[in-house]
Amino acid sequence: MLGSTHGTLTTDPRRTHAVACGEHPAPTVHGTAHGPGAALDLDVSGRPLHADVPDLDRFFRPESVAVVGASDAEGRPNTGITRQLIAWAERVGARIHPVHPTRETVFGLPCVPSVAELPEQVDLAVLLVGDPLPVVEQLAEAKVKFAVAFASGFAETGEAGAEAQARLTAAVERSGMRLLGPNTNLNAFEEFRDDLDGPAIALITQSGHQGRPVFTLQELGVRLSHWAPTGNEADLETADFLSYFADRPEVGAIAAYVEGLKDGRSFLLAADHAARRGVPVVAVKVGRTETGARMAASHTGKLTGADTVVDAAMRQFGVIRVDGLDELQDTAALLARARKPQADGVVVYSISGGTGAHFSDLATEAGLHLPTLSRAKQDELHEWIPSYLNVANPVDNGGHPVGDWRGPKIIDAILDDPDVGVLICPITGPFPPMSDKLAQDLVDAAERTDKLVCVVWGSPVGTEAAYRETLLGSSRVATFRTFANCITAVRAYLDHHRFTADYRSPFADAPRTPSPSYRKAQSLMRPGQQLSEHAAKQLLRAYGIRVPREQLVTSAAAAVRAAGQVGYPVVMKASGARIAHKTELGLVKVGLTSASQVRDAYRELTDIARYEDIDLDGVLVCQMVERGVEMVVGVTQDELFGPTVTVGLGGVLVEILHDAAVRVPPFGEDQARAMLSELRGRALLDGVRGGPPVDVDALVEVVLRVQRMALELGDELAELDINPLMVLPRGQGAVALDALAVCT
Amino acid sequence: MLGSTHGTLTTDPRRTHAVACGEHPAPTVHGTAHGPGAALDLDVSGRPLHADVPDLDRFFRPESVAVVGASDAEGRPNTGITRQLIAWAERVGARIHPVHPTRETVFGLPCVPSVAELPEQVDLAVLLVGDPLPVVEQLAEAKVKFAVAFASGFAETGEAGAEAQARLTAAVERSGMRLLGPNTNLNAFEEFRDDLDGPAIALITQSGHQGRPVFTLQELGVRLSHWAPTGNEADLETADFLSYFADRPEVGAIAAYVEGLKDGRSFLLAADHAARRGVPVVAVKVGRTETGARMAASHTGKLTGADTVVDAAMRQFGVIRVDGLDELQDTAALLARARKPQADGVVVYSISGGTGAHFSDLATEAGLHLPTLSRAKQDELHEWIPSYLNVANPVDNGGHPVGDWRGPKIIDAILDDPDVGVLICPITGPFPPMSDKLAQDLVDAAERTDKLVCVVWGSPVGTEAAYRETLLGSSRVATFRTFANCITAVRAYLDHHRFTADYRSPFADAPRTPSPSYRKAQSLMRPGQQLSEHAAKQLLRAYGIRVPREQLVTSAAAAVRAAGQVGYPVVMKASGARIAHKTELGLVKVGLTSASQVRDAYRELTDIARYEDIDLDGVLVCQMVERGVEMVVGVTQDELFGPTVTVGLGGVLVEILHDAAVRVPPFGEDQARAMLSELRGRALLDGVRGGPPVDVDALVEVVLRVQRMALELGDELAELDINPLMVLPRGQGAVALDALAVCT
Repeated sequence: MLGSTHGTLTTDPRRTHAVACGEHPAPTVHGTAHGPGAALDLDVSGRPLHADVPDLDRFFRPESVAVVGASDAEGRPNTGITRQLIAWAERVGARIHPVHPTRETVFGLPCVPSVAELPEQVDLAVLLVGDPLPVVEQLAEAKVKFAVAFASGFAETGEAGAEAQARLTAAVERSGMRLLGPNTNLNAFEEFRDDLDGPAIALITQSGHQGRPVFTLQELGVRLSHWAPTGNEADLETADFLSYFADRPEVGAIAAYVEGLKDGRSFLLAADHAARRGVPVVAVKVGRTETGARMAASHTGKLTGADTVVDAAMRQFGVIRVDGLDELQDTAALLARARKPQADGVVVYSISGGTGAHFSDLATEAGLHLPTLSRAKQDELHEWIPSYLNVANPVDNGGHPVGDWRGPKIIDAILDDPDVGVLICPITGPFPPMSDKLAQDLVDAAERTDKLVCVVWGSPVGTEAAYRETLLGSSRVATFRTFANCITAVRAYLDHHRFTADYRSPFADAPRTPSPSYRKAQSLMRPGQQLSEHAAKQLLRAYGIRVPREQLVTSAAAAVRAAGQVGYPVVMKASGARIAHKTELGLVKVGLTSASQVRDAYRELTDIARYEDIDLDGVLVCQMVERGVEMVVGVTQDELFGPTVTVGLGGVLVEILHDAAVRVPPFGEDQARAMLSELRGRALLDGVRGGPPVDVDALVEVVLRVQRMALELGDELAELDINPLMVLPRGQGAVALDALAVCT
Repeated sequence: MLGSTHGTLTTDPRRTHAVACGEHPAPTVHGTAHGPGAALDLDVSGRPLHADVPDLDRFFRPESVAVVGASDAEGRPNTGITRQLIAWAERVGARIHPVHPTRETVFGLPCVPSVAELPEQVDLAVLLVGDPLPVVEQLAEAKVKFAVAFASGFAETGEAGAEAQARLTAAVERSGMRLLGPNTNLNAFEEFRDDLDGPAIALITQSGHQGRPVFTLQELGVRLSHWAPTGNEADLETADFLSYFADRPEVGAIAAYVEGLKDGRSFLLAADHAARRGVPVVAVKVGRTETGARMAASHTGKLTGADTVVDAAMRQFGVIRVDGLDELQDTAALLARARKPQADGVVVYSISGGTGAHFSDLATEAGLHLPTLSRAKQDELHEWIPSYLNVANPVDNGGHPVGDWRGPKIIDAILDDPDVGVLICPITGPFPPMSDKLAQDLVDAAERTDKLVCVVWGSPVGTEAAYRETLLGSSRVATFRTFANCITAVRAYLDHHRFTADYRSPFADAPRTPSPSYRKAQSLMRPGQQLSEHAAKQLLRAYGIRVPREQLVTSAAAAVRAAGQVGYPVVMKASGARIAHKTELGLVKVGLTSASQVRDAYRELTDIARYEDIDLDGVLVCQMVERGVEMVVGVTQDELFGPTVTVGLGGVLVEILHDAAVRVPPFGEDQARAMLSELRGRALLDGVRGGPPVDVDALVEVVLRVQRMALELGDELAELDINPLMVLPRGQGAVALDALAVCT
């Protein structure tokens, strides 16, 4: 249900509705980092091409704050909250103004009876009242910039709550103010440690409890700069904080816990904004299963979207998706703090051959590159490590030297290698004094290098001084508790920098105006109907996708004439608006080589259709295309992201194995190629049993043309399915042998 | 290289060699729990059918110990070891006898100059000498039961070391003594806490460092009973400890870190032994990748085996394979301590809707069953939990009640539900006092129930009292640090009990005598050769596997006669010992319907063969089999496990997607069916596009008959490949359309 405006070109009432609803309200309402001009930059479907980055400085660092519903009465929940807000205001240096209809003072602070009587224009109003709606209008009059609403009972509770939330949203939009919540909490106003330095993690969560572990990382020495608990997102949403945090210089990485997204497009634009700036985003997204999706919906009242689509969208824009909160912590902490890699080689330095073997096995399986160290480097290491130990990588030191200078020499020598970007030292248990010295040597070496030094502290206890003081005391060493999390984080680190180094925003190249194909296509669309195969193929031709030579005929004699023009051998198929499973019904005849066969086939097809009570608009006489690899390419509508493009292996493979890849437009040729490499059966494209490789370039071109259709036709096209697309040997192109199109 | 003896039936020198090498030495040498009679129970290939369980009581609890090479000289490595051994002997109440050629005393204990002069017959000799070989013979004379050799420089160093190890093995076998090592360490003689109770973990590792984290679990309150550091396994191997530990009453679970296996069969028998006794085995096995396999080999000098085969073998016998040492710890600790499940339903109890949604999503994805609680149970829970919160499962309490008795009521009510076997409470951070009370309520509830109560303590800090004292202080609550490890362990727990409840040892049903098929098959074998398609099919027929009616002919006239007998339409194929890719070469002609087509085909096939310079033994005229689903069934030899049986989807699917499942014989029909359900394309067997389901029973029967071949022919059959096996619609059987067989 994404808004779409070739405005004048369509009369579809839903479009008008979507725009009127302001899913992408005019940017002037909220202001934007790009200015009104940039924000008016829209793609061909009328959707924005840039993130609308809100200025939230005064939200997180207000000069004055009003607390509406403040209390200091014993035993009231608002009293505890008021106390925390006062403490927070003091820390950030904000003036605080309690608002209460009857009290003179709250906690000794002078109190005003209503928002209208605030002594100054405040930056932020915290609403502790049960129904924030009436307050919103007063806040607007008082020109308050930001509000936070804690009250629950909105979209998370069902239909009536959703309606109340819609009214709140409308009031906020009229007000010119930005609102966080409802159904949120105090997390934004927690006490952040200010004694930690280096790049920080900024945190966005749709559940306070789910953000707690990341926030608690501060106790392990990891700096946190912000926490945005987005709640029901009646106004401000995850995407707003994502793009705002990406612009903050102190933020090294953004960690997010997401249950559902308010709007697919704004999420993509925010992720794109972060990717352009090279700021890593690590996210847990609930909704892998139906159960999770249902639970998440009942928690914050948002759509989770089809998980494969969410997953693809995140990968397209470099968002690192992880499953566990522990992975979220470890990956975000590493990405926030590690410098840019100088090489992608990982060396495992270990005090045990077994540990080295085990770690290398898992790391290699996860796709990390463990280069074999050069002969010269191995010789160098063997100056300090006995010759019978393997130092090719993993480097087995047989026990880190404790008594002398050899330990630092070994570590420095490894880090010195130009192929090495990361050194990982898994320590499976405390073996003092060796593990103490090893930890200290690693910390010292990390101070001397820009390369990444990781340690896995494998002891399940975790109270050892080497871990808690030496390793966690260093912001230069990334310390993990499990092999798996270290490997996940290092992989994300290398992937992230590879991704951003090559990143080119697909929004930069997104079409802004309809192609000449669009008008042709429009004339073929039949709202609410499934097109006939012939019409669907004409739609494809409009977008330059090759279809077989074919003619639609309505008599046996015409069929014979058509066959002569198309050229023998021919294929004949029944054609009609609502025919599925043509082959199973016997409605396809292949390899017809003579006029008499064509005549017979015509009779047989029309007989079957009569017998099966199927309406035909005729019979297609089609050119027979030689064999290639059968693929499917299609468009489906996702509730969150709108039209998506799918490519998969055709025939039985797609039906049985669902071997397909999906992308959310806009995407470039690189992503179209990446889709193919995601297919389990991709080797088919290289040729089977010594056969020639297929025309991958032509296949990629079809995917991009289908994307163009999806972008231009927007939600007019409910579904498109080219099945099969016959991809011929290299240089010979690809032909859509059959197609199904459904108009909205 | 597994020993195989239909002894008199084969003259293959390798077989004789394998038996002579004593890979399965006569059980009388070492004694066995089954007595000589049971151990002589051999399968048709001459391999044992029962684990040879060594009695290691006096190894772990000796009455007297000799330390050969004992020292108390300052700065010598043996001095530290001697000191630790003396302390250990004191703890276990063993008398200790230092052996040193020149010293009078060591650490004040009287010293003898050689093993021959020991004052009593000792149970265990610890060899601290560089070369244990010469000592072994003296130990044998002194009738020492067990020895441990720490020295390294054996199979892990390469060929010369492997030879030295073979000499050591031979000397040990002659001696009647059992040896641990070489290349091992002091782990067996560590200090085990004796203040912990409940079932214990017994630990087996091929690397001391890699066992340390499990051993350290004692500091978290988990009892450990044994640690066997198997080193190079010149004699005692992982399998020996596995079966011995499975017999110990105090052992609740066995945890193993395995780099390579010495012998596939003895591992299977030991795992079978543990499965029969219901003792869970959790293992990390290195070798997922080539890198890991290579590293492991250079560490302990053992074979890792093809990983897919190892993986299948473990699953067949219920060994729970995990990847990380953290998973090994968490899973083994849970399995050791948790009582048998009363139901497989898992309920998530959470103080946050978000946490409940997230945990449920991951748990459901991992295959755990989260039942929706009954209306009545939900009503009961709503007596204590506000009505707007979801208590269907996950149970969201909106914050665990602190001030009164509601908390325990809620937990008890959940555990009371007959569908519930496991309650999991994920706590994402410390929220005192709520989290303290919640932890205590969970610990108290766990004391009142036999059901499993799990907690995930999500704070990354881990020094909180609720975690360290309350939760870790309870042996009834299973405490985890990550959602993932909790889910992995609970799944393993439920799977293990499901597995052992239904377990029937495949060794009980393994064939002991050759079938009548075997003699027929033998006459077809051609050592060192690939059989022709026709001969390979006769081999299949010998084992009752259906092949098409076919005749091998050597003239066009005979082909026409054969076609008449086989029945039109026919398929014709060139037949010869070394023809691969027949179809690609044009050496197959299908759908021949007349004598003239048969004559032409004969000519064409022989022409192509001449042109391609291929030796034919004739042309096959075969019955044409109607269409079904193409599968492949085959036998390959694994370096560790011997013959293995594979089944997969045929044609392009197996070539491109490698969609196949493997098993190590012996296995029963249940495993043959499980193989099919492992196939990604298994839906093909249910029928495609409304087609009929195929004859799965017939397919299973073919797999079992191929297993019988593999068992009886042993390593005479280097390779068998039925491709395709055409599986017809249900009730119509399966036909091997082509087969390739290679004799060793």
